[in-house]
Amino acid sequence: MFNCISIKGGIVSVKGFYCDGISIGLKPNNELDLAFIRSSKPCNISYLFTTNRFKAAPLQYVEQNKIEQCDFILINAKNANAMTGKEGLADVEEIMQACKEKLGVQYPLMSSTGVIGVRLPKQRIIDGLQKFDLKAKNSTHASYAIMTTDRYPKEVAFEVTLSSGEKFTIAGIAKGAGMIDPAMATMLCFIVTDAKVPKEMMKPLLQKHAKTTFNAISVDGDRSTNDSIFLMSLGESAYEEEAFEFALHKVMEYLALKIVSDGEGAKKMVAFEVVGAKDDKEAQKAAKKLSNSLLVKTALFGEDPNWGRIASTIGSSGIECYEEKLQIYFDSLLVYDKGKVYFDAQMEQKAAQVMQQKSFKILCNIGVGNGAFTAYGCDLGHEYVKINSDYRT
Amino acid sequence: MFNCISIKGGIVSVKGFYCDGISIGLKPNNELDLAFIRSSKPCNISYLFTTNRFKAAPLQYVEQNKIEQCDFILINAKNANAMTGKEGLADVEEIMQACKEKLGVQYPLMSSTGVIGVRLPKQRIIDGLQKFDLKAKNSTHASYAIMTTDRYPKEVAFEVTLSSGEKFTIAGIAKGAGMIDPAMATMLCFIVTDAKVPKEMMKPLLQKHAKTTFNAISVDGDRSTNDSIFLMSLGESAYEEEAFEFALHKVMEYLALKIVSDGEGAKKMVAFEVVGAKDDKEAQKAAKKLSNSLLVKTALFGEDPNWGRIASTIGSSGIECYEEKLQIYFDSLLVYDKGKVYFDAQMEQKAAQVMQQKSFKILCNIGVGNGAFTAYGCDLGHEYVKINSDYRT
Repeated sequence: MFNCISIKGGIVSVKGFYCDGISIGLKPNNELDLAFIRSSKPCNISYLFTTNRFKAAPLQYVEQNKIEQCDFILINAKNANAMTGKEGLADVEEIMQACKEKLGVQYPLMSSTGVIGVRLPKQRIIDGLQKFDLKAKNSTHASYAIMTTDRYPKEVAFEVTLSSGEKFTIAGIAKGAGMIDPAMATMLCFIVTDAKVPKEMMKPLLQKHAKTTFNAISVDGDRSTNDSIFLMSLGESAYEEEAFEFALHKVMEYLALKIVSDGEGAKKMVAFEVVGAKDDKEAQKAAKKLSNSLLVKTALFGEDPNWGRIASTIGSSGIECYEEKLQIYFDSLLVYDKGKVYFDAQMEQKAAQVMQQKSFKILCNIGVGNGAFTAYGCDLGHEYVKINSDYRT
Repeated sequence: MFNCISIKGGIVSVKGFYCDGISIGLKPNNELDLAFIRSSKPCNISYLFTTNRFKAAPLQYVEQNKIEQCDFILINAKNANAMTGKEGLADVEEIMQACKEKLGVQYPLMSSTGVIGVRLPKQRIIDGLQKFDLKAKNSTHASYAIMTTDRYPKEVAFEVTLSSGEKFTIAGIAKGAGMIDPAMATMLCFIVTDAKVPKEMMKPLLQKHAKTTFNAISVDGDRSTNDSIFLMSLGESAYEEEAFEFALHKVMEYLALKIVSDGEGAKKMVAFEVVGAKDDKEAQKAAKKLSNSLLVKTALFGEDPNWGRIASTIGSSGIECYEEKLQIYFDSLLVYDKGKVYFDAQMEQKAAQVMQQKSFKILCNIGVGNGAFTAYGCDLGHEYVKINSDYRT
């Protein structure tokens, strides 16, 4: 038994963590564009990186140096430092060296988001380090600094009280799958905790819960060169596996769904729940295909209860399915039932009402097995095209 | 040796074929919406259908009746007759029976495009049969009648003269991957020939040439319940394998590229040529991923020479690739060369000029093997969103 409550303060609600965001002119209009997350002493750190073969230089740095301890994460917006070759990696090394020398941190690492294929404004970043107040506790500023086309910052924190009365805290910030002028849709997530989570458990837990949270969301189906989830554990408070997993999942789920809701130009978030598939893998395949389908996404934008596009997408997803076994629901409204055409004007009106909501569920029962998966997606409208076709300059 | 020349007349340039398009009120404003293709005597017919598990009723009719001979194809727009269950199939059977009785044809089949999940206006179609002039030779009217969101009809014909002096003709019409208010992006293609192509060669040849033509194009990455390619062969003229394959490929390539150019809202057509992949399959995987990427498609729309999105899409396509081996060209302009950042303002300007063209090539040399594939795609802009989000009513 444990008790998990939402608390304010974002990352700095966890004792021993400091963070802030400042402006060094990477974004226009003095917007915040450089952030740090610092811990009072070295943390265990684990991470999940993009599966893109062209990992950005800061990710290569972490992997090549086999970083397992960390007391400082530097995060810049506007430049992904991806496809920048050896020079890009050398830039990271130089900046990390400057962090050690100028800020006195021991195990720094770096995370970047922004345009691909352009060298980092290295000197500006190094000069910016001096402006950091390392004692700052401003999670919201850090959340703002890592934003690109996000419309709002994303932060969350939970305090967990174990049955023994002991407590731990876990918190995170994230930026969304929005493209920066005009690089890739990068997703960055930083989670910190004071729980004494065993080092060897960190990666498996991240992987397990990423599957149903960050890996279940989709804004445009592309995978960035920079996507990262970091988990920093200070290990000074209590730990209990069940409670920690619960809270970690809550943090990841909250941030992942915030990212979908804030998808570029998105007006609504939709849960695509596929049940009754042959197995979970087939359910996932169909659910992800639905959340990525342009035809489905534009129908969501148009609030058009076009279940035919849902059906056709299921049919083309490559999973085992039969017209006479398929059921489709919009929330609790059954719109297609096993091969019978009975979608009339009245039902269409009801279905359209479901679609006018900011958030709703499309449930597909494949009717062949017990596989289930829920993917989360958003609509695609003019704003998406506008954001992504605007010329960089 | 043979000589292949483009001729006018579309489908009816092939002796023994008749076709027309009429209006029966399926589309508004008396637009043409019902077409037929008729041959003077039964033809051998072969076809390729969508891989969507939910095949439309007219496709089920062809498969269930194992149709190998055909003298009449009836084509309606505005209703796909898909996801309509047993009733949908019964509708096709009834209409086919009416064709036999009222028009005296022996082996009719049917092809539909339009909204999914709504019963066919069966009686209206049956009544419409009476209005057909079976001696009509109007390929353009037929091409118009099968259009949905297509902006122009698509027809082509070639006359091939063999070294012996004998001739054959091959011609086709197609409709594009445009969505009809608001069903799936259906692609229909009808090819007719008088060449004496051996029956057993028809399907293998269709499959072989579909791979590099229709299966290489992409408008939105979705696969309809109704996609079909039909090949009717009257078998009264000469045949020579090499010449026939050449001409068949030309017909399929012409119509496939016309469909991409006329993709919904598309302003430009782009050939994504991937070379140097581990094998052809990997090249195809990367090329198709490029032609389907929302980020790439919106960059094309914005005429933004954003090679970073191209690189990142290659990297996330799952193929073997390395930053230090990759080269990216816009037409003949090298914009990325094996890990070196050298894309400057001058080059950007040149690249932007390439992108302002109506048609150009993006070539990616993966640098690891000899695999090659070219996929064809188009840009995605506001018009696409408009067409696909407009409410049906």
